[in-house]
Amino acid sequence: MSYRSVLKVLAFLLLVTAACLLLPALVSALYGDPDWPYFLAAAGLGGLVGGLVLLTVRYAPELRVREGFAVVSFGWLVVGLLGAMPYWLSGQIPSLIDAVFESISGFTTTGATILVDIESRTHGTLFWRSLTHWLGGMGIVLLALAILPLLGVGGMQLFRAEVPGPVAERLTPRIRQTAKLLWAVYFLLTALEVIALMIAGMGPFDAVCHSFATMATGGFSNHNQSVGGYSSPAVEWIVIVFMFLAGANFSLHYLALTGRVKVYAKDEEFRFYGSIILVCTALIATTLWHISFYPTAAATVRHTLFQVVSIITTTGFGTADYLLWPPVAHAILLILMAVGGCAGSTGGGVKVMRVFILLRHAKSELKKMLHPRGVYTLWFNNRAMSPALLTNVLGFFLLYLLVYLVGVVILTLGGLDLVTSVGATAATLGNIGPGLGLVGPASNYSSLVGWEKMLLVLFMLIGRLEIFTVLVLFLPEAWRRS
Amino acid sequence: MSYRSVLKVLAFLLLVTAACLLLPALVSALYGDPDWPYFLAAAGLGGLVGGLVLLTVRYAPELRVREGFAVVSFGWLVVGLLGAMPYWLSGQIPSLIDAVFESISGFTTTGATILVDIESRTHGTLFWRSLTHWLGGMGIVLLALAILPLLGVGGMQLFRAEVPGPVAERLTPRIRQTAKLLWAVYFLLTALEVIALMIAGMGPFDAVCHSFATMATGGFSNHNQSVGGYSSPAVEWIVIVFMFLAGANFSLHYLALTGRVKVYAKDEEFRFYGSIILVCTALIATTLWHISFYPTAAATVRHTLFQVVSIITTTGFGTADYLLWPPVAHAILLILMAVGGCAGSTGGGVKVMRVFILLRHAKSELKKMLHPRGVYTLWFNNRAMSPALLTNVLGFFLLYLLVYLVGVVILTLGGLDLVTSVGATAATLGNIGPGLGLVGPASNYSSLVGWEKMLLVLFMLIGRLEIFTVLVLFLPEAWRRS
Repeated sequence: MSYRSVLKVLAFLLLVTAACLLLPALVSALYGDPDWPYFLAAAGLGGLVGGLVLLTVRYAPELRVREGFAVVSFGWLVVGLLGAMPYWLSGQIPSLIDAVFESISGFTTTGATILVDIESRTHGTLFWRSLTHWLGGMGIVLLALAILPLLGVGGMQLFRAEVPGPVAERLTPRIRQTAKLLWAVYFLLTALEVIALMIAGMGPFDAVCHSFATMATGGFSNHNQSVGGYSSPAVEWIVIVFMFLAGANFSLHYLALTGRVKVYAKDEEFRFYGSIILVCTALIATTLWHISFYPTAAATVRHTLFQVVSIITTTGFGTADYLLWPPVAHAILLILMAVGGCAGSTGGGVKVMRVFILLRHAKSELKKMLHPRGVYTLWFNNRAMSPALLTNVLGFFLLYLLVYLVGVVILTLGGLDLVTSVGATAATLGNIGPGLGLVGPASNYSSLVGWEKMLLVLFMLIGRLEIFTVLVLFLPEAWRRS
Repeated sequence: MSYRSVLKVLAFLLLVTAACLLLPALVSALYGDPDWPYFLAAAGLGGLVGGLVLLTVRYAPELRVREGFAVVSFGWLVVGLLGAMPYWLSGQIPSLIDAVFESISGFTTTGATILVDIESRTHGTLFWRSLTHWLGGMGIVLLALAILPLLGVGGMQLFRAEVPGPVAERLTPRIRQTAKLLWAVYFLLTALEVIALMIAGMGPFDAVCHSFATMATGGFSNHNQSVGGYSSPAVEWIVIVFMFLAGANFSLHYLALTGRVKVYAKDEEFRFYGSIILVCTALIATTLWHISFYPTAAATVRHTLFQVVSIITTTGFGTADYLLWPPVAHAILLILMAVGGCAGSTGGGVKVMRVFILLRHAKSELKKMLHPRGVYTLWFNNRAMSPALLTNVLGFFLLYLLVYLVGVVILTLGGLDLVTSVGATAATLGNIGPGLGLVGPASNYSSLVGWEKMLLVLFMLIGRLEIFTVLVLFLPEAWRRS
């Protein structure tokens, strides 16, 4: 591990975050809120630390695969810590642990909050919460489509061939090229949602904040009742559509924008993603309709679809308290929390692509029983999967499950009830936000104690960075000097 | 699929079961209960049907791998249906569905019961319940160590080399040889437990019934309060020891009895099995001790160890209502329900061996991240695992999880609460018996409706017969004429 190379990138990330902190300072000043100096102070802190580090490690070797894991993991952590500063300095979130929770929840696009009364916060704070989502979401798309394929993380190699560019040990040139394309798509979709929400009657400030949170599949809202607080079916439908888009592979959006709209219909992951949403919505809506939970069929379908899309894309916006729904809704939503969005989207979880591959593998093993000497090849989007790639995806899934189970055991060991523990672990590891029990959609994470919050922050990072990226740093070998 | 070959074996199994039904008839007559004619009637029915089928399909081709799946799956089903007859005919269990549930729960060594007041049942009924366990348990050891390795079911091939004999498409010669050795071990351990329990003060009838249920890791008890009803620490310790032995690989016991006692220490699965029990017992006992749940340290350790061993071996005996324990106990016991006993034991679940292999695989994939070009071989008991075997084990695990999740969704869709649905699915698929919620250890399955009971019967069979064996019959290809 070359520490200097890692430090150099971290310093660079701090400088970028410091620059971004100027935006909420501006918003705060424009709205006449008193807390703009704290954003400037945090920006100054980031600039100072980042600048000093850059000055001391001016010459560092080129990044290699090994450093990639450390850069990504510590990058998210360091940026998250700097992002917590304005909350804490301004007293908007008096506890440092809570401030870090809120900030990392933002950057990991989880959207779990410890704020009890969101509406009483300053514009700067609300804007910064949403901006952390948006920046984190952009980072994730870049990570999934440009960086992780090179690091070889669980199935992401499947996208290696999608975007042209040299595949080499040196990471930088490839990333720059991909980044530009994806920024454009991400920016465009966000702008479209802002316009749509404003046409539907939402004010510009809320429209921007919610669009940031939607496109990042984050889930922070400016309303105590989340998107449901606007009591506007039009707003809900718009958010459904953009959540759905944000949960799909961004390279598909890029190809579609260049005229190749058929890519959606051809992509196996996208088709499976759509099918899961349809089937789950049908199951839950039928049950709700059966017990006359909502007065009209339209409301039943809208609320169900909203919640299903919100959970599978790991956004976590709410229009309804799904804990009041019948148990089958809890079972399905809990499963969807683990499924997550498509690979190369801003969504978290295991990813639809991996679930698809796992199911196909299970079916092929079943068929092998009848023809033990047959040769079976797994196909994904008309390309044969190598056995190495398959075992990598299986390894990813097992590690995900392992972290999940260990998380539930630790939280229950600390005294939380089983349903809350399962819900909190699922919701943070999958980067959803609201869970079950005490951390359900009508509640928040403020009732948890300090170490529980820190553990959940770790789960947010592990889940967000595709498990391997963080866990590999727990291997002593990762730290050996090269 | 050669239907005649399958029918021939099923008929043979019916005749064997009919012969076994003479035993409870004898017990019933000896104790002067009025229900002995019903056992004779059931025996007569089985003899008649089995005999008629054998007469009509006297000439059938030799069994091949393909028929193996049908023989095993339908074998357990047909035997279970015949076994339900005496319960139903005698009116001891008036509902046919309940009678089938109790019988298949017995033969699959699940031990889930629909009986509310067990102690008021006749001796014949109680003896038959326990005998179904014992017969089923024997069948399972045979299945795991002799039949499944030839069928290639998820990892069982690892045992192919353990017992000498020809590996061929023809199943019969190999099975006969292995069967004799294992019968001897099984019989000997059962006899030892009967003697030990009688020395500890249990009456001979109860000692025999509980030994049958222990060695089969079944869990039916003659007491409404299960083993806890005897209020005897000695009885509990004896049952702990024999549950532990029943949950270990029977080929180890065979080798140990021939003088090679070191095999236990050398076997990686056995060591892992012991470690899981120790760690889980320590975690739960510490928590219980911390809240002073039991007055003495001895009682705390005994009750915890009993429950941990009872659940991981999938026996399901109880000395305590673990639903009253703190949430961490529920979380750990729920995980242990899925882990199950060792491969080649009478225990159900995923099996310790597979969990061990899955964990080792996950770790190896993590290491691969750092050395993408390294070559990794998985070892199990000093033998290299082929990649094909590994993907087979992974496929097994995925199918297990899939059935589990589908089960929970169907049960919640029917209106059961989430915890009961999870508990009931885990407890039947893993062949444990008691679950969580409405079907917890202080309760039983009588409150469920007909279709729920039938679904759980299906899970018992799927789980018991190592998933693949039953699921493969759902493939249309399995039914093609050869």
